[in-house]
Amino acid sequence: MKFSSKVQRCGLSPMRKFHPYAVAAKAAGKRVYHLNIGQPDIETPPVYFQAIRDFSQKVLEYTESPGIPALIRQVRSYYARLGVELSEEDVLVTTGGSEAIQIVCNCILEEGDEIIIPEPFYPNYNTFVCTAGASIHPIPTTAEEGYFYADRARIEAAVNEHTRAIMVTSPGNPTGVILSREEMRLIADIARERGLFLICDEVYREFVYGGEELSSMIQFKGLEENLILVDSVSKRFSACGARIGVLISRNRELMSHALKYCQARLSVATLDQVAAAALYTMPPDYFTATREEYKRRRDTVVSKLQQIPGVVCKCPGGAFYLMAKLPVDDADKFQQWLLTDFEDHGDTVMFAPGEAFYATPGRGKDEIRIAYVLKQADLERAMDLLKLGIEAYNRRG
Amino acid sequence: MKFSSKVQRCGLSPMRKFHPYAVAAKAAGKRVYHLNIGQPDIETPPVYFQAIRDFSQKVLEYTESPGIPALIRQVRSYYARLGVELSEEDVLVTTGGSEAIQIVCNCILEEGDEIIIPEPFYPNYNTFVCTAGASIHPIPTTAEEGYFYADRARIEAAVNEHTRAIMVTSPGNPTGVILSREEMRLIADIARERGLFLICDEVYREFVYGGEELSSMIQFKGLEENLILVDSVSKRFSACGARIGVLISRNRELMSHALKYCQARLSVATLDQVAAAALYTMPPDYFTATREEYKRRRDTVVSKLQQIPGVVCKCPGGAFYLMAKLPVDDADKFQQWLLTDFEDHGDTVMFAPGEAFYATPGRGKDEIRIAYVLKQADLERAMDLLKLGIEAYNRRG
Repeated sequence: MKFSSKVQRCGLSPMRKFHPYAVAAKAAGKRVYHLNIGQPDIETPPVYFQAIRDFSQKVLEYTESPGIPALIRQVRSYYARLGVELSEEDVLVTTGGSEAIQIVCNCILEEGDEIIIPEPFYPNYNTFVCTAGASIHPIPTTAEEGYFYADRARIEAAVNEHTRAIMVTSPGNPTGVILSREEMRLIADIARERGLFLICDEVYREFVYGGEELSSMIQFKGLEENLILVDSVSKRFSACGARIGVLISRNRELMSHALKYCQARLSVATLDQVAAAALYTMPPDYFTATREEYKRRRDTVVSKLQQIPGVVCKCPGGAFYLMAKLPVDDADKFQQWLLTDFEDHGDTVMFAPGEAFYATPGRGKDEIRIAYVLKQADLERAMDLLKLGIEAYNRRG
Repeated sequence: MKFSSKVQRCGLSPMRKFHPYAVAAKAAGKRVYHLNIGQPDIETPPVYFQAIRDFSQKVLEYTESPGIPALIRQVRSYYARLGVELSEEDVLVTTGGSEAIQIVCNCILEEGDEIIIPEPFYPNYNTFVCTAGASIHPIPTTAEEGYFYADRARIEAAVNEHTRAIMVTSPGNPTGVILSREEMRLIADIARERGLFLICDEVYREFVYGGEELSSMIQFKGLEENLILVDSVSKRFSACGARIGVLISRNRELMSHALKYCQARLSVATLDQVAAAALYTMPPDYFTATREEYKRRRDTVVSKLQQIPGVVCKCPGGAFYLMAKLPVDDADKFQQWLLTDFEDHGDTVMFAPGEAFYATPGRGKDEIRIAYVLKQADLERAMDLLKLGIEAYNRRG
């Protein structure tokens, strides 16, 4: 039987592909410290569960394809607090930020098209871009420069006649890089000058550790036709399992095409929408404690990493990820070995090997992504395990 | 800005495109009887809501990308009762049956490919096929023959070098047509002989009104490489808003490609999976009352329709839809007129105009799909409104 050439070009998730080895390691009695998946351990606000308990309709019906009015209203209020007035038509509720990205790719990309994305990037972007028949044109970065990419010459060097869009994630997954106001403006200018869509994945907006004000690309004027925003409750409210995201744009034609997809899949899960609306009633200072917790974790991970000989890691400004360059030949082999051959007092550690975060062949082979989503003591132990693992791996015959 | 040529070929949902007119009609004080959407009014089993209330984890986490083991186990038990042994790897949980179809289309179709589907068909199939770059090659049917399509010559006439798959929905949406055991075997034979995938959307399996035993294409032997099954809790348990479906196949390569998509969108909503597992604990006779209720409704609608002069409608065997041919020039215009210009004692009626259910240009213009999802008295009133509407529409100057 023949399969789509597009799906054959896609790979399994680097965050999830070592799952079977982890299962085997656990079955063999090992404790695995998971730094591979961005699953926060912060409690989901109880209003989420309460809203679902309070749901009293007897028939669990489809909702409106664009999302329930109560949730759209809450999303608009949230953006109003950032100084952004959105109309109802500017917002479509999606099944996680993932679906928003998938819909956007299907609306604006097709065979032979390119989308500019700084690499390393969130690998699932590649699946969505590939499925649409297009490819990622990466903006190269280096670990030594802290994965910096917001430079006019570098970005413009990637633009050609196939380019349809620039996509940025800020705060960044997997690098933790955050764009300054000036860098955001630069990228916005390039998108406008070149007539490109600008897709901004801002699901980590609150996760900034330098005292920065909350910001969004949608705060800039004159970007109405270009800007497409992806947002989600997953990280903001530690509600990954809700699968509630939004697609925001003032480009009417884009939104009318996106609505076709929303209608084709009928609606987003009803109870999760109701409960997500409740999440947005959390007071604005709800996030303060979470931010402090993550800042502490980042500082722990970075300081521990920088103490490992041969590791390259600049301190990132946001999100809860960082990329690091390791003194190993191949992070994929190293990860597998950590699960099958290594342990320290019964413990081992898991991260996401770097290669799948790159479009350029051969790049990222000695890099890993770390998600610092564990409690302080566990994080410290995990970083110690990484250090011990590197030493043992490089000592083995 | 340029958009994908594929999305430009897709249309808005015929079930949902008159929504703004319905809103306006209601705002003007009209009562609208909705026969346009397959939203059952049957109560969702309370175990659904109870399972969610009992959920005690404090962090709403992502689940496994293929779905939670508890739900996969329940799906396997359900199929075991149909005499079908599924392994864990044969099942992927999806965000509604819709996502299952979307994933399958992306895995097996690409530019220039064709998929054979009897027309009229569920219009959202077209969006998923189109997005994958392929097109629907319809098997023509007629209202006069009760939309019969399970004929070797008719199906084989549609096969060519571009054909990748045959897709059938039984019991059928929008026609209510059900395949007999022999017809199923015929279609299975053709798929196997021609080396085609056979995609079976069986989400209405329980909705059969002639005393038929529950059946599935997966009960046939020797179809392991060809068969792809789409199923869902939406209709079976009146839980459309759960957005929980499954993709079932024993074709290992297909499932490995499908898993890439499942991983890219991370997971299906956690609480809805937990609650859907609870739905499958309903006793096998749970469905008896529902089936009787729908049978009564079907009989009401068919007998009322057959009394309207000029209407063509054969009594269908299953699902809760039927297609009917009306004595009007254009069902789209007629629907709009019913919402804007018609009322009887403040009431009007809404159905899904037929054109979007066809791939062949010009076909279906005088047909409508009716979803008989209202209580008996409301259904009778709705059919009377249809009769009055047809008369008034054809009398207008």
